[in-house]
Amino acid sequence: MTTVFNDPAEFAQDVVSGFVRLHPHLVESVYGGVVRSTETPEGKVAVVIGGGSGHYPAFAGWVGPGMADGAVVGNVFASPSTQQIYSVAKAADRGAGVFFSYGNYAGDVLNFDLAQERLRAEGIPAQTVAVTDDVTSADATERGRRRGTAGDLVVFKVAGAAAEAGYDLDGVTRVAARVNERTTSFAVAFGGCTLPGATEPLFEVPAGQMGVGMGVHGEPGISEQDVVSSRELAAMLVERLLAERPADAGPRVAALVNGLGGTKYEELFVLWNDVAPLLEDAGLELVAPEVGELITSLDMAGLSLTLTWLDEELEELWTAPTETPGFRRGSVVASRPRARRAAADAATSAVAEASPESRRAAATLLSAAQQVADALREHEDELGRLDAIAGDGDHGRGMTAGATAALAALRTAVGADAGIATALAAAGDAWADRAGGTSGALWGTGLRAAAGVLDDATAPDDATRVRAVRAALDHVLSFGKAQRGDKTLLDALVPFTESLEEAVTAGTTFDAAWAGAAKVATEEADATADLTPRIGRARPLAERSVGHPDPGAVSLALVVRTAAV
Amino acid sequence: MTTVFNDPAEFAQDVVSGFVRLHPHLVESVYGGVVRSTETPEGKVAVVIGGGSGHYPAFAGWVGPGMADGAVVGNVFASPSTQQIYSVAKAADRGAGVFFSYGNYAGDVLNFDLAQERLRAEGIPAQTVAVTDDVTSADATERGRRRGTAGDLVVFKVAGAAAEAGYDLDGVTRVAARVNERTTSFAVAFGGCTLPGATEPLFEVPAGQMGVGMGVHGEPGISEQDVVSSRELAAMLVERLLAERPADAGPRVAALVNGLGGTKYEELFVLWNDVAPLLEDAGLELVAPEVGELITSLDMAGLSLTLTWLDEELEELWTAPTETPGFRRGSVVASRPRARRAAADAATSAVAEASPESRRAAATLLSAAQQVADALREHEDELGRLDAIAGDGDHGRGMTAGATAALAALRTAVGADAGIATALAAAGDAWADRAGGTSGALWGTGLRAAAGVLDDATAPDDATRVRAVRAALDHVLSFGKAQRGDKTLLDALVPFTESLEEAVTAGTTFDAAWAGAAKVATEEADATADLTPRIGRARPLAERSVGHPDPGAVSLALVVRTAAV
Repeated sequence: MTTVFNDPAEFAQDVVSGFVRLHPHLVESVYGGVVRSTETPEGKVAVVIGGGSGHYPAFAGWVGPGMADGAVVGNVFASPSTQQIYSVAKAADRGAGVFFSYGNYAGDVLNFDLAQERLRAEGIPAQTVAVTDDVTSADATERGRRRGTAGDLVVFKVAGAAAEAGYDLDGVTRVAARVNERTTSFAVAFGGCTLPGATEPLFEVPAGQMGVGMGVHGEPGISEQDVVSSRELAAMLVERLLAERPADAGPRVAALVNGLGGTKYEELFVLWNDVAPLLEDAGLELVAPEVGELITSLDMAGLSLTLTWLDEELEELWTAPTETPGFRRGSVVASRPRARRAAADAATSAVAEASPESRRAAATLLSAAQQVADALREHEDELGRLDAIAGDGDHGRGMTAGATAALAALRTAVGADAGIATALAAAGDAWADRAGGTSGALWGTGLRAAAGVLDDATAPDDATRVRAVRAALDHVLSFGKAQRGDKTLLDALVPFTESLEEAVTAGTTFDAAWAGAAKVATEEADATADLTPRIGRARPLAERSVGHPDPGAVSLALVVRTAAV
Repeated sequence: MTTVFNDPAEFAQDVVSGFVRLHPHLVESVYGGVVRSTETPEGKVAVVIGGGSGHYPAFAGWVGPGMADGAVVGNVFASPSTQQIYSVAKAADRGAGVFFSYGNYAGDVLNFDLAQERLRAEGIPAQTVAVTDDVTSADATERGRRRGTAGDLVVFKVAGAAAEAGYDLDGVTRVAARVNERTTSFAVAFGGCTLPGATEPLFEVPAGQMGVGMGVHGEPGISEQDVVSSRELAAMLVERLLAERPADAGPRVAALVNGLGGTKYEELFVLWNDVAPLLEDAGLELVAPEVGELITSLDMAGLSLTLTWLDEELEELWTAPTETPGFRRGSVVASRPRARRAAADAATSAVAEASPESRRAAATLLSAAQQVADALREHEDELGRLDAIAGDGDHGRGMTAGATAALAALRTAVGADAGIATALAAAGDAWADRAGGTSGALWGTGLRAAAGVLDDATAPDDATRVRAVRAALDHVLSFGKAQRGDKTLLDALVPFTESLEEAVTAGTTFDAAWAGAAKVATEEADATADLTPRIGRARPLAERSVGHPDPGAVSLALVVRTAAV
């Protein structure tokens, strides 16, 4: 959805105005697009790129030293006019001719060819390489009919570096044609986009489906299929591109993973994590790979993989320095790699000396911890569902991970003859570390605070055990910055602690008092269904949780109930 | 929607693995996150930032010389654990202590504070500044309760530059606290996001509405209202931030426009085009402003404006060089600004000498061109609606713009005593230039081709006029790369031309033949309703156009019908 605009008819012009306002040190406006605002020597071939708007950083984002001299800016997804192309080319020309490059689409070919004819008629030499990297848009035997997609970046970068290095017009054309021939891309689309002011999407992809080979303006692909995992997607993309490896290709490749706008960096990194090993397993060496939003289509969801089979000349041009608003190579900041440090071992701290009583007390925690971990795993999905009502649904997973890690840490500690204070502290640390999030930290700090009341010399008596529970509550209150009634685990933990304290003070045995307190905690956890959260949640989501108990309170009640058995 | 992943539980880890694979020259993995892989001097304060995943380039993208030494990486939208923070801090420490900075959220505060205590307990000095820039999350009098959003970037950049410049821990803390106090942000949200593996969005914003002040994880804002124009939005954002201008603030400000992921570069540039003049009108001087995806929330739609009131020290630190995967300052490429060229005047070409007959013929075109422009304007919406069925809905606007420009060019030419060939060529050029897109280029090249058959010495006879129409058709066929039957304007233009040729050859008067051919063109245009486009459209959209005539054929028929009157 395109949301931010004034007059939709002026959108492309407003975009370029804002863009030039932001980067006056690199670009300036001319009729039809932008040219460099930096000094450019006479006698340098002018590289002019372009196409429709809506693909930032393509195309205006690539104007600057080391890359393009000018970019022609059409309306959204529409070819620029012949006059626009001619105007930008005239402004960019430095007396050595104009090299045009753009993605191979009918409207662009038409208008760039007309502009080229006009320049030639005026005695300005002009040459063109239209980019044709999209393997699914036509067969390999009909290379000239293929569309241009993310391969644009490689072709423009190489041509720009060649022109900057002093190649003449024929030389730039030769190297650009060569890099284009050795560049292939394969794309999938997950969702369409909506133009400024439009009431309907320009095109759509059914939910849960992906358009294999679908073009950046919704051009038909080769098939539609269910969305697959990143690993399967990586295999599909890599296999198809390796199949077009040129006969004379060496192992050096430039690789790009491009996100179309709605598919985010995180997803692109996940895919790269699956793609890179496949390429390396095929014996390839990755040269200055790029993963990001390189050529977008507004907020269209989807991505592509591009491979360019480099030779020595192409590699030098691909890696040469450049400075444009949307693409850079080279750094002013010295960044020498340092020797890799030895992998930091988890410090195996020596276990403090403990008395037999305290060690026995630690061992008794083991079976309770085992039962708690089992109970949480059994209720993991249910806790997840409760959490998903107004949260991110990971509470069950986090509690299970925390309790399982705590159990393992307890086992290790007991195996190393730790006393109860050391063992419980280790359990708390492990819980906090593996559960993650706020609730993991609260459980961890609570268990650690309880351990602080105990020691490794004695077995705790009932009063000490009650004080340990109180210490846990106090820490959770002080760190969690919430109160009873906020619809958090405190709604179960506060009444649990109070009930336990009262009963033990009144002379009830600890085990009976604990069982009674666990019953109170369960009732109070259920009663949180009537509350609305007061902290940390968006209002509409908070409201949708009314009628459902708080997952943190429910899981606390489950733990104390299980530990009592 | 998050689409690309393997096991959702491993998403954050897969993201960081792919990220480190891509940037081994800058970052390496440690337990809990990443640290620099570049050499860093002993005795430098370590700047450690962090938070949940899902906000790239925040936070791991900002590790590198000149910025952070390490970033802690939590699960998606969840605080990292104390152990993770401690681990990254230990790996980053170079013996001068650790400076922590992160956005002010309860879970992060809890875990970073616990890690800080643990470091201090080991004798490692540690200090913290939690970022609190979001003006809508709490009142200015309760600054410490505000959330941290895009202001993170400014605070981390300034602290990182200070540490790199050799500030000690107290110095880094002082300058970071100062820049945080002088940084404010104001955000609006247009749409929510969906976590990997989730079946429902984490939160939503109703269509056509914006959540004013809504947080990056869906935290409640101050109101919901209808989406407004970029200009109104800019005014709203600027007004609110100027209201918190510190008493001692000078005119120098850092300004950021941040896109949350689903709101694209083009929209951000449009907003910047409205924001920058408002700031300049308020007497402010913009220092190294940034517009882009700086802190995202997966594919959440929305944006924010951030202002930092600089002093001399802060400005130097804000503009200092840095080299990280997600943020750079400084360039290796020399880019001296060049003297601005004089605005290129549109070349006013001298009009070729013309005979009185040819000039009169040119003048007769004027009234036809006027009627065509009027008719197209009258039918603009209807043509737009037809085009929106399978296209981007701009056909009516393009045709009206082209015809209006052609009329103006004709008027100028006739006023300058041009003959019919020159006048018609000028009309074609103006049409192509202003209409844009493929259809604008085709109309332009068609009119220009027709002009090529005419001359400025005579008035064309009927046979010449027919040849001019045929020349237009031939050029459109050759440039457009489509055939009759493809559901394009050719479905009206081909039968129009053939009918005109036949009738004139059979002895019908030119005007009668034209009127007959226009009738044929209209019928054939209507008949395109039965066709499916064969080129240039996505399949599902092409199918939805069946039953509706092609807008290009309809507008052609309209033009020839109107010109015949």
